[in-house]
Parts: sequence; structure tokens; C-alpha cells
Amino acid sequence: MTVGDLGEFGLIAAMTARLPRGLRALVGIGDDAAVLATPDRRVVATMDLLVEGSHFRREWSSATDTGSKAAARNLADVAAMGATPVAVLVGLAAPADLPVEWAEDFSSGLAEECATTGASVVGGDTASAPFIMIAVCALGDLAGRAPVTRGGARPGDVLAVAGPLGRSAAGLALLATGRSEPAELVAAHRRPRPPYRRGPEAADLGATAMIDVSDGLVADVGHLARASGVMIDIRTRWLVPDTGLLAAAAAIGEASALEWMLTGGEDHALAATFPPDTVLPGGWTVVGSVLTGSGVRVNGSAPVGRGGWEHFR
Amino acid sequence: MTVGDLGEFGLIAAMTARLPRGLRALVGIGDDAAVLATPDRRVVATMDLLVEGSHFRREWSSATDTGSKAAARNLADVAAMGATPVAVLVGLAAPADLPVEWAEDFSSGLAEECATTGASVVGGDTASAPFIMIAVCALGDLAGRAPVTRGGARPGDVLAVAGPLGRSAAGLALLATGRSEPAELVAAHRRPRPPYRRGPEAADLGATAMIDVSDGLVADVGHLARASGVMIDIRTRWLVPDTGLLAAAAAIGEASALEWMLTGGEDHALAATFPPDTVLPGGWTVVGSVLTGSGVRVNGSAPVGRGGWEHFR
Repeated sequence: MTVGDLGEFGLIAAMTARLPRGLRALVGIGDDAAVLATPDRRVVATMDLLVEGSHFRREWSSATDTGSKAAARNLADVAAMGATPVAVLVGLAAPADLPVEWAEDFSSGLAEECATTGASVVGGDTASAPFIMIAVCALGDLAGRAPVTRGGARPGDVLAVAGPLGRSAAGLALLATGRSEPAELVAAHRRPRPPYRRGPEAADLGATAMIDVSDGLVADVGHLARASGVMIDIRTRWLVPDTGLLAAAAAIGEASALEWMLTGGEDHALAATFPPDTVLPGGWTVVGSVLTGSGVRVNGSAPVGRGGWEHFR
Repeated sequence: MTVGDLGEFGLIAAMTARLPRGLRALVGIGDDAAVLATPDRRVVATMDLLVEGSHFRREWSSATDTGSKAAARNLADVAAMGATPVAVLVGLAAPADLPVEWAEDFSSGLAEECATTGASVVGGDTASAPFIMIAVCALGDLAGRAPVTRGGARPGDVLAVAGPLGRSAAGLALLATGRSEPAELVAAHRRPRPPYRRGPEAADLGATAMIDVSDGLVADVGHLARASGVMIDIRTRWLVPDTGLLAAAAAIGEASALEWMLTGGEDHALAATFPPDTVLPGGWTVVGSVLTGSGVRVNGSAPVGRGGWEHFR
């Protein structure tokens, strides 16, 4: 059965059946708008688009993986403010010949990833389009914390990272060269696992600035440096590729594990700056330092080559 | 200059330049997520998609009109809960050859329509796609009001409408038949003017249920009836086409002004039910009554033919 057979309202019903209602939803799916409790008197809000062919391919990622990834991108943005995700709205534009099963599995993936953070899907929209396009809006709760922006890094701070680097890029490179091993890296591309809890943790530790690594470490740390008016120097001796990344790089030949860690996006690790005396718990790795000046450096030098991912180019 | 010439970050900068920062935005555009004040401890949230070719055509609607319409659809959903819109997030997927001017004018239209409600654009995303697709998420403030859902209509209530009916459908029919007069109807299609303030007003008047008329009066009142477990009877003698609608119908020949008012969507009028003794201020027109039973009736009979707009069919 296709989405066209089912029609708009049937599609919404089929998707909604896979989406458990959240505790924060005072009014959930099915009305003109959702109503969400925000006891903190503030709400964190972000939106991301995923376009078929650009952000995912149906032959490389299952519907469940695509739903999970669509959620993860947005939930990680909420975490990067120091907040806990609480709700998600999702827009799905799709061709009429899309199997209903794809939309159902997409919803399941979305719900599964949301559930890992305690968030739930509270609303959205569907539309007809020649290919799949997904919009996700995620809302989050700061629970009394000050938001951690990109703009607070100060000279003397340390740069630290929580979560994986380069694994999604390695997985994509494996898929693009017809490989499926190491399977863990292909899985990391299909279904990133951002370290959501590390966002509020960083805020509680006194993080001065934070960003989620969606475009690549060098590019995203560059955003931090620009917003904060500082220079940030990444030290590669602190970036240690694991055996999986090294094996993938060796298999592909032209690739470098370290380059994936520096420039690969979509793992949604968190990069944050902390005052120099901060005692960082396990899970955080210091990978650089904040200096006076501007821009991002790698081992003291301006990075060469492709620093990250930019659309339209 | 095209969007591709400018690149993703240049495009975001060009769009942001057209988007004034709102008072509610504690953190605005440019970080991982926005942070918004929600003093009411609740937030209303809705999302809509607009797909080029389905929801708008570049040859029929300017970029400014498209931005305005994209905002209006969502702001009206917020109003239909009894809330005031406060913030909008926007996703724009577009081909690399899109003129930058289109994106800038789109942003201006978005900002203009948001400003009519006091809302502002606080975040969003851009992506590359073969044609334009727009996602808008609107957030709203209930300011202490109970949300007005679709589910509270009771037998004995009256059905009333605020705002225009059938004007967007008439404008679309004029454009589709190569006409540009009456210009006010073409303008109504290009740039709907929902009666935003009537949403909170209806809540304050004790509205028992409310919906924004996006799919057509019969279809949307049908949603109200279903959600409330009642029958709603629309009386056409209370639906009086104005001279513009009559002129358009006469010009096109096959069309009926009353049919546009019953089935035309996208004007984003508000349809609400009120207890029978409610004194409705000017701007509201009683157009029907709530009865025991189920479904929607027009003059006591089940409506025939196309009741409204549904995607995928």
C-alpha cells in the first residue's frame, strides 16, 4: 500500500499510531497545534531539514534509520544549548508512491530516538512532493540552567569533546565505496548516537560555550571561535582514532582517520569550552585550548582543505 | 546572484538581515537553537510544509507573498488554539540556482506577516533541493487561557466564523483561468489575511471548540464535529457571498461563489463553537449549529462532492 492509496488523513493516522504521546503534551497530535508544558518559563527551539539525496539515500538508510537520524540532528541541537529535549514536531513531504511502511518505520525511528531523551512527537504535517523531504523542530527544557551559547568562550578555556568524531563520515565513505565493514561505522552513519545527556552536564559544569558537531570539528569549532571572538587551537595528539576508524581508512586507502575526526560531520558530538580549572568527568576529552585572536587552528596552524560540510557548494 | 554563489552561510546571513529580532527571543538566530521566554509555563507549537508546485507557484506568487503565506498558515494554527503567536522557525530548501533576491524577499514576507501578530523569526535551517520546499514552525503564548481544542463543541452550541471564506479559492480559480480581476481575490490567494486576534478573543468569549479553515469550511467543521463527537449543521443562508466573489464566479462561469465559501481552503478564517447565549462581537458571523449526532451537514443534508482539500489524492 502506498501513501497515495491511504491519503493524507490515513497517513497521519498510520504515523501517529507509531508515536507515543509524551507527558509534556497538554494537547498532542490531532489539533491545530500542540500545547506543551514549559515549567521553566523558557523553551529551547530548533529546526532542521533533511532532503532525500542530500542528507540520506533510501538505498543506504532504512526508514527507521532515517527517522532516528532526523530526530537525532535536532535533539543534539537542543542538548548543545544545555537543555533536555522534550518534544518534536515533524513534517514529512513524500511522493504518493511511497510505501506506507516507509512512513510507519520512519515514525518508529523518530519515536525511538526521541524516547532515548524523554522527548515525544507532539505534532507535524504531511505533504505531497516528488521526493522525500523531512523537517523536524525540536523543543527543549533548560530546567533553570542558563543556556550555553556559542559566544562565551574565553582565552584560557579548554576545548573538550563528548561523543564520537569521524565515525559517520567513515561510514559514509565505506558505503560510497561499496563496503559494509566495519559494520559499526556504517551503523554510525545510518544512526548517529549523540551524547544528549552531556549537554545539560556541560552546562552544569560551567561550560562557557558549546556547539554540536554537525558540520565537522574544525568547521564547528570555527563557529564557536567566531561567535566568541577568540582563537581556538585543536591539538591532534588528543584526537586518537580507534581501531575501527583506522581499519576503514586502511581499507579505503585514500582516506585518513584523523581527517575524518577533524572534518567529518553528522556524529553530533558536543564540543564545549570550559574554564581551565574545570574537572571534567569521564566522557569528555580535552582536545584544544582557547587563545586570544580569531579563527580555528589545528596544531597552531590554519587548517587547509575542506573544513567541513556546507550546502549549495 | 544565486543561492549557490552565496553558499549556505551567506544565504543564512542574507535572510537573517531581513528578520528583526523579537522581544521574546532570549537567544535568537545563529546558535544551535533559539531560547524563547514562555512566561505562561506553556507553549503552543505547530508546523506546516509548503511545497513548490503544490502549495504555491513562483509564476503566480511573488517571493514576498510566499513568505507571508508560509507564516500565515502557521500563525493561524496558533490563533486557532486561542493563543498569540510569538515566534517562528523556518526551513528553506531551494535549488542552488535560486536568485538570492527570492530568498531575501521570502524572508521579508515572512517577517512582515509575523510582525502583524507580534511574532518574530527566531531560527531555522537551509538546505539544497531540486525545488523550493518550506517548513515553518510557529510557537504561541496562551497568556493564561485554556487552549481551545477541536474537541469541546456541545449540542446546543452555535457555530460562528471570523474572517474571509472562499476568497483564496476564488483567487486561485481566477489565476488558473488566466484572469487577474477582481484583484482583491487574487491578492487574497497570494497573501491570506487570517483574523489572528479573533483566536484569543474566541477563547476569552468561552469558545468550546475552534479550528482554522485551511482545508475548506465543510471539511474543517467536519474535523470539529468528529473531534467533539457531535453533528454540526452549516446553514448557507448565513453565508452571503460579497460582490467580488459573485463577480469572479460569473466571470469563470462554471464556479459558484457559495461553493467557494463552503469548500475553499487557505483563507485561514477561524471557525468556532460557542455556548448558545454567547454575545458575539462584530467580526463573528453565526453560520450553523451544533446538534447531537455525528458528521457535518449543510442545510440539514450530508454534503456532496469535494468537501475540502486533501493531499496525495
